[in-house]
Amino acid sequence: MKDLCLIDNSAGLSDVPGFELAGVSCDVRNKGDDRLDLALIFSHSPCKAVGVFTLNKVKAAPVRLCEKYLRTGGEIKGIIANSGNANACTGKEGMENASAMAKETALACGVEQENILVCSTGRIGEQLPMDKIKAGILSAVQQKNSSDEQSLKAANAILTSDTYSKTVTVQVSCNGKKYTVAGMAKGAGMIEPNMATMLAFLATDLDVSTEILDKVLRKGIKGSFNAITIDGDMSTNDTVVLLANGDSGQLVEDDPKSELYQKFEAAVEMVCQSLAEKIVSDGEKITKVVELNVSGAASPADAEKVARAIGNSLLVKSSWYGEDPNWGRLAHAAGYAGADLIEEKLDISYNEIPALVGGMPRPEYKTKWKEIVRAKRFTISLNLNIGGDTFRLLATDLTEGYVNFNKSE
Amino acid sequence: MKDLCLIDNSAGLSDVPGFELAGVSCDVRNKGDDRLDLALIFSHSPCKAVGVFTLNKVKAAPVRLCEKYLRTGGEIKGIIANSGNANACTGKEGMENASAMAKETALACGVEQENILVCSTGRIGEQLPMDKIKAGILSAVQQKNSSDEQSLKAANAILTSDTYSKTVTVQVSCNGKKYTVAGMAKGAGMIEPNMATMLAFLATDLDVSTEILDKVLRKGIKGSFNAITIDGDMSTNDTVVLLANGDSGQLVEDDPKSELYQKFEAAVEMVCQSLAEKIVSDGEKITKVVELNVSGAASPADAEKVARAIGNSLLVKSSWYGEDPNWGRLAHAAGYAGADLIEEKLDISYNEIPALVGGMPRPEYKTKWKEIVRAKRFTISLNLNIGGDTFRLLATDLTEGYVNFNKSE
Repeated sequence: MKDLCLIDNSAGLSDVPGFELAGVSCDVRNKGDDRLDLALIFSHSPCKAVGVFTLNKVKAAPVRLCEKYLRTGGEIKGIIANSGNANACTGKEGMENASAMAKETALACGVEQENILVCSTGRIGEQLPMDKIKAGILSAVQQKNSSDEQSLKAANAILTSDTYSKTVTVQVSCNGKKYTVAGMAKGAGMIEPNMATMLAFLATDLDVSTEILDKVLRKGIKGSFNAITIDGDMSTNDTVVLLANGDSGQLVEDDPKSELYQKFEAAVEMVCQSLAEKIVSDGEKITKVVELNVSGAASPADAEKVARAIGNSLLVKSSWYGEDPNWGRLAHAAGYAGADLIEEKLDISYNEIPALVGGMPRPEYKTKWKEIVRAKRFTISLNLNIGGDTFRLLATDLTEGYVNFNKSE
Repeated sequence: MKDLCLIDNSAGLSDVPGFELAGVSCDVRNKGDDRLDLALIFSHSPCKAVGVFTLNKVKAAPVRLCEKYLRTGGEIKGIIANSGNANACTGKEGMENASAMAKETALACGVEQENILVCSTGRIGEQLPMDKIKAGILSAVQQKNSSDEQSLKAANAILTSDTYSKTVTVQVSCNGKKYTVAGMAKGAGMIEPNMATMLAFLATDLDVSTEILDKVLRKGIKGSFNAITIDGDMSTNDTVVLLANGDSGQLVEDDPKSELYQKFEAAVEMVCQSLAEKIVSDGEKITKVVELNVSGAASPADAEKVARAIGNSLLVKSSWYGEDPNWGRLAHAAGYAGADLIEEKLDISYNEIPALVGGMPRPEYKTKWKEIVRAKRFTISLNLNIGGDTFRLLATDLTEGYVNFNKSE
């Protein structure tokens, strides 16, 4: 869309007027190092805010707290987020600790406890080191400012097994004025449907109602955070929050046909898409990103089932790692996906090169498939030739490095 | 059950009166070696026969052929089975080749084509080398006999990435007489719900109607072949066949309360269970077998969902490989299984040692958990404490060796 300018690997939220950030080290992991592990996002103006959270029935304490604060519809002034400890499976004490994080941040910022959202990511089943966290909160509140430096520190402080920070900014031009949508995210492992073990924080200076924010965010995550898979696991802590502080003084009216509404919607989608791509590309020890395009399905759900069955098949993922164009494994995974499928109608191709046409192999192109799967990123298309529905999934390979990395924590 | 005697690692089908076997080499893989790759099972008396097949919508040609021959309800005299090539995604030529395998075997044995079942396992998408297969069939028919040697050769000829052959015999005593149920199987990779990439052939000398055979086999596979997982993949070729040649002259009457019916049913379950255990223990490059017992679920389906979510989670399987008692990953996988689950009610234990009670960790037992997960086989129990339903799943770890082994074919 014209008038939208994507600034990749920007400093992220510091690009949004009215937001202050901080990233500090408070040794959540008890390792005695100075790794950044506590991030603060703060807006002087109160924000309209919406969130989308994990569907896991084992929900971390901070997720429950955020859902509660957002349900009451109060305005949000900030987010405090730590890495290194998920505060999940921590019972009553965990809930008290999550509340205490909000309370300490609110006190130090001079706002109400319910104005502060709380996020955690890291190991499950251990209580937070609250003395360290509290000291970190005071330090973060003191250091917060609108510099790119602190914004990048914040983006780094939420990382776990990620190898780089993930930030992006989209500048929106409309009627001669400029507005901003920016975001930061963390991902790395446990990335599957419904945003597993990922945190993403988006912010804008537009003035947007909670209703519109909700619609726009849900649309934004659909083809991005909800259409990537690394290992098929879904975490207890997934959170995407979108804040709108209205500092630009420009209201987004509730008219999906208006220019500004459409540009805002497109900007949020671009931010989500860019962050999702960064997450999947930084999957734990991966060597390949594969774009799976399923078409010709009898329903959208069928298209998604086929894409996820392939994207999560250990045999398929292992063959990608081995640069083996093993289309037989693609066909067998499609076959057990539970979708309507007729073998004699199935087409499979690597990039544009056919591997299977009408259920029959085209071995004459074998040399070309082999060349394609040697690339770091390639596309596999499956046409079921039954209906008109499609799904696009970004998936990764499975490597010996992943197993080794995850064999202990 | 008393009067049932399990002979583990027997020669298998040669223990059943009236059956002849052969295992020969015909170089299906075109490698010029003398690996056994074609098995023949033959009964001089016509058999009642039933089969259970893959639910994959991409079905190999021999699976379609078996379904057709069994649907007509004709009696079966034998099975011809090759490894090294799955004859899947091979179109019209593949169907003709499967028919030709039945026809050649039937001709050489002097029976009808529809009396011979056909099975294949191995690589997908390549046509069978029919000249070699035909030569192999003639050789197998010549060599077939009731010796343990040929029975073990047959059990070896169906293997792919298995590291050992899988055979078992159960002797049934009833009213002073003895009957036999025996079986052979192959497994190794792609083992998940509904018997993925596995073949199992069971036989008995009892005289059993097709209706009873069907009931008994379906019951037998439920807690065995359908309750194991290695990599979560389901193949195009899964087949379990049960043959009854009636050579003992003893009819199993259609009375589920009769002694012989119950003993036969139990014997089939024992054979299935023993073969399933062998399959999971010989999973590709595994180092651990973990028995998952889920209880207290709101429904049998919920119990199964939780067990499978855990047994197929890459993070869980990697931690088993690393001998890390990471109960947090068990809880998170249970949480996304899609089953009714209340975190505050969840109990998890390693063998009998609690890890989580009522959703709260019991770190005082950490040393004991660590000891337990160092064993080659251990049990993890999850009690959801919601309802009364249970599911037991045998699962394996995920190793760097698995990924390396499957990165190319």
